Amino acid sequence: MEKNVMETVKALKGRSLMEPFDFSVDELEALFCLGDDIIDNPQKYAHICDNKILATLFYEPSTRTRLSFETAMCRLGGKVIGFADPKASSVSKGETIGDTARIISGYADIIAMRHFVEGAPKAAAMASSVPVINAGDGGHQHPTQTLADLMTIHRLKGSFDNLTIGMCGDLKYGRTVHSLLKAMSRYNNVKFVFIAPDELKMPQDLIDELGESISWTETKSMEEAMPQLDVLYMTRVQQERFDDKEQYERLKDSYILDKAKMALAKEDMMVLHPLPRVNEIEFDVDEDPRALYFDQAIYGMYVRMALIVALLGLTPGELTWEKTRRLPLAIHPEAKEVACTNPKCVTNNDRAVKALARPTEDGHWACEYCDTVMK
Amino acid sequence: MEKNVMETVKALKGRSLMEPFDFSVDELEALFCLGDDIIDNPQKYAHICDNKILATLFYEPSTRTRLSFETAMCRLGGKVIGFADPKASSVSKGETIGDTARIISGYADIIAMRHFVEGAPKAAAMASSVPVINAGDGGHQHPTQTLADLMTIHRLKGSFDNLTIGMCGDLKYGRTVHSLLKAMSRYNNVKFVFIAPDELKMPQDLIDELGESISWTETKSMEEAMPQLDVLYMTRVQQERFDDKEQYERLKDSYILDKAKMALAKEDMMVLHPLPRVNEIEFDVDEDPRALYFDQAIYGMYVRMALIVALLGLTPGELTWEKTRRLPLAIHPEAKEVACTNPKCVTNNDRAVKALARPTEDGHWACEYCDTVMK
Amino acid sequence: MEKNVMETVKALKGRSLMEPFDFSVDELEALFCLGDDIIDNPQKYAHICDNKILATLFYEPSTRTRLSFETAMCRLGGKVIGFADPKASSVSKGETIGDTARIISGYADIIAMRHFVEGAPKAAAMASSVPVINAGDGGHQHPTQTLADLMTIHRLKGSFDNLTIGMCGDLKYGRTVHSLLKAMSRYNNVKFVFIAPDELKMPQDLIDELGESISWTETKSMEEAMPQLDVLYMTRVQQERFDDKEQYERLKDSYILDKAKMALAKEDMMVLHPLPRVNEIEFDVDEDPRALYFDQAIYGMYVRMALIVALLGLTPGELTWEKTRRLPLAIHPEAKEVACTNPKCVTNNDRAVKALARPTEDGHWACEYCDTVMK
Repeated sequence: MEKNVMETVKALKGRSLMEPFDFSVDELEALFCLGDDIIDNPQKYAHICDNKILATLFYEPSTRTRLSFETAMCRLGGKVIGFADPKASSVSKGETIGDTARIISGYADIIAMRHFVEGAPKAAAMASSVPVINAGDGGHQHPTQTLADLMTIHRLKGSFDNLTIGMCGDLKYGRTVHSLLKAMSRYNNVKFVFIAPDELKMPQDLIDELGESISWTETKSMEEAMPQLDVLYMTRVQQERFDDKEQYERLKDSYILDKAKMALAKEDMMVLHPLPRVNEIEFDVDEDPRALYFDQAIYGMYVRMALIVALLGLTPGELTWEKTRRLPLAIHPEAKEVACTNPKCVTNNDRAVKALARPTEDGHWACEYCDTVMK
Repeated sequence: MEKNVMETVKALKGRSLMEPFDFSVDELEALFCLGDDIIDNPQKYAHICDNKILATLFYEPSTRTRLSFETAMCRLGGKVIGFADPKASSVSKGETIGDTARIISGYADIIAMRHFVEGAPKAAAMASSVPVINAGDGGHQHPTQTLADLMTIHRLKGSFDNLTIGMCGDLKYGRTVHSLLKAMSRYNNVKFVFIAPDELKMPQDLIDELGESISWTETKSMEEAMPQLDVLYMTRVQQERFDDKEQYERLKDSYILDKAKMALAKEDMMVLHPLPRVNEIEFDVDEDPRALYFDQAIYGMYVRMALIVALLGLTPGELTWEKTRRLPLAIHPEAKEVACTNPKCVTNNDRAVKALARPTEDGHWACEYCDTVMK
Repeated sequence: MEKNVMETVKALKGRSLMEPFDFSVDELEALFCLGDDIIDNPQKYAHICDNKILATLFYEPSTRTRLSFETAMCRLGGKVIGFADPKASSVSKGETIGDTARIISGYADIIAMRHFVEGAPKAAAMASSVPVINAGDGGHQHPTQTLADLMTIHRLKGSFDNLTIGMCGDLKYGRTVHSLLKAMSRYNNVKFVFIAPDELKMPQDLIDELGESISWTETKSMEEAMPQLDVLYMTRVQQERFDDKEQYERLKDSYILDKAKMALAKEDMMVLHPLPRVNEIEFDVDEDPRALYFDQAIYGMYVRMALIVALLGLTPGELTWEKTRRLPLAIHPEAKEVACTNPKCVTNNDRAVKALARPTEDGHWACEYCDTVMK
């Protein structure tokens, strides 16, 4: 790796990852270069975590994400402790998230937390003595999914600039597409094509928020969009999202990717999907070399390896015996105590977490834990 | 190990194990020799899987089998990811077995799958990029149990030929005794003594199927059988199997192994049992040196070690960085799409798995997944 | 470490730990010195368990204790198998605790068992071929919690002699305070101050049992006690313990540790707590350097590391390939078959365990499994 990349990686030591935008464009670039180096030279990294422990604290089952993290740590030579399910766990019995995080950070070197409460990983990170990775907090953030998406594009396209990205399916509620849109908006000359029925269109607020930084068109027709795309990001159109079941029945097949639609696409288009897939991509598309959603899961594992190495500040061939201390989290300098209105926010679900909000540009307050804007 | 044994072991690289008869007599012999070498030289194998990961996907809890696999991998220096219970897992939420297997095979180097659906491990193996071991699929197959039984006999008797094997208890429904019978039928001059009440006799179809290859007698009396036996394979007589509860009460003690019955046996007879034992072997038999069922569990672990080493194609002292790719599964060349009549078959429980059956010698079709014969 | 300490540690090889008093004062001292050496020289111990496996058999969830054991083994270079929850486990289906322990001891090198049945770990230890550690058996014993408490005091105070120990909260039902009291009663010139409401006073029997070996006073006032204490051991006053809810409401705040009460204490007083903490220590006390309950959790992990090393009889830099065989458990020489009256005792919950009791000094019988005295 180049020297400036290595220095950028080193500067991530002790950081936590709460949302995809915690890292600058340069930091992400360095992380993906580290990921490339791990892919290309697995031996160099196979023992880098020999004396390190990852704790996977999953208060909500998410087998794919958990196994991706655990594999990542194992392939770095590290070990894993944790729990997979709140019911198999007694940690939550009357104990605050902060106390649990503080105890576990006494055992482990790094924590990946999945929680059904929004902002819970941030509350954990504030109490933990070691870096914390948000492995999904309710409907709020799932930053390592976005890193997996970006790593796949970076690895296979070489760059993020000048791409046309189609996003298809449920663009209204899909957390992954919102994060990916924001993340990709930071690169040059990226064009977006939003492919969705009226019921599931990309929210106007989000488009407004990104403003000039994105160039986009929208369509209801996959067929129309296909020929332009460099990347097609598929998500599922779920029946539950429709009030009108007949409307769902009429529309559902339009957003299923099949061989016929693939025939309209460029030869080097990438099909991505966060998985699990239900029926939104037909099984016979899997054999198409452009179907890269299973590779995407593998790149997700590699970017988690890169993330662990970076947050722990490790260097190949050099074992450190000191624990990597967590750096302070970025809290807005003008943040103050303002009650959050989101009932799923950790401030409303954990007696030790005090409400804390930052001023927004348009004069409101936004929760520092779950980002809900109080209006 | 001898050179030809090593070559036979090497030829197993990339294979999957779906049923005990996937391996030829020579292949099994080589596997057991490898097992012996692991027992005798643990150091040689203690780091052979240093950079390898086993995924244990247990859709049905089976603590003993799971811990045996996990211990096997740990004692080879490898690491383990997975889940122990479907409820703690989210993998099955609308996702096909094939998609799960394909994703997990991107993380792990080898998969052991336990599933309540018959044929599910085969569906997984077809989609996986790495070798898959069936760790039990409903009432269908449990090949590593049979390997454990055979490894124990091989290790302690030195050979399978010329043995008299008593099988006692529930011979009608017992999957383990049926598999062991078939497996032992491939060796020379093996005599079987079936010891069971009328209600639980060895099925005539199975005896007919094996035909000339087996030499057998049957009896209702353990006492009568004991003096002849080199191996006594115990199973439990369960009350649920009897329509007539009085009959059960009258018979049950006849099939309990106790010190008095042991007194009738040869000095070098082996008592085996697949465990767990409930009351079919009295606790005070445990101290008899011929009671080898706990050792059998240990040999089960060793044969799983041998299996992992063989399927991954590993050689002591040499780390390979490439993943071992799964070889194609053996599908009958005349197999075609014929619906399976077994409601527990994976073809009837997973929308991505297409029915597939092979012609049988007597003009029927047998499911390629669960082996049900459609008549 | 000094030579005589090392020899005392070596003599623990093959022992099991059922209750805190299984170890003599000298043995504990040696164990804590080993713990100190592990803390000070982690590299020396980082691979000592390279080819060893810990089985964590948790029939009752206890995430903190389980993760402490698993981390301990990981930090020694060893591996872990096990289960976290009886529901995810099938081991108990009709199988005796002894059979399970015997099978698992064929896989693992050492077992940590948590069970809701009192005396279950002892029944397991009797059948196991490897050392067993009681990780908590119902309301009976939790010896590694007591070791954690002692290790913390030993590490931070340097000695147990001449200390004044305050015990606050629920002294009537608190298993941890009873064990700690007994354990500390073996040292010189230790003074106890029992701080509790009348409803939750230290039981007179226990005080009588310890007799001359302890010097104690009691008070209802934390404020009164604070200035004298070298150690304050906090426990929670639970509402369920009070018949009279008004009485609970009136009292509860008196036994909550806050900054005001801390202001009354010595500058080097230690606050300990077995965790989880609910509300009995206010969150803002955490930042006080005397608040050592999170460090206590870390010392708990270190003493478990020392315990594993000692019971396995390991020496840094030297890998042993033989399994450490369990030594016989101490059974009273005059023990005989006397039925236990405790319905939660393993003798009343496992058909393979025979009742066994020892004579007490005052002419009764005490169960060898759960220590219930039959009167």
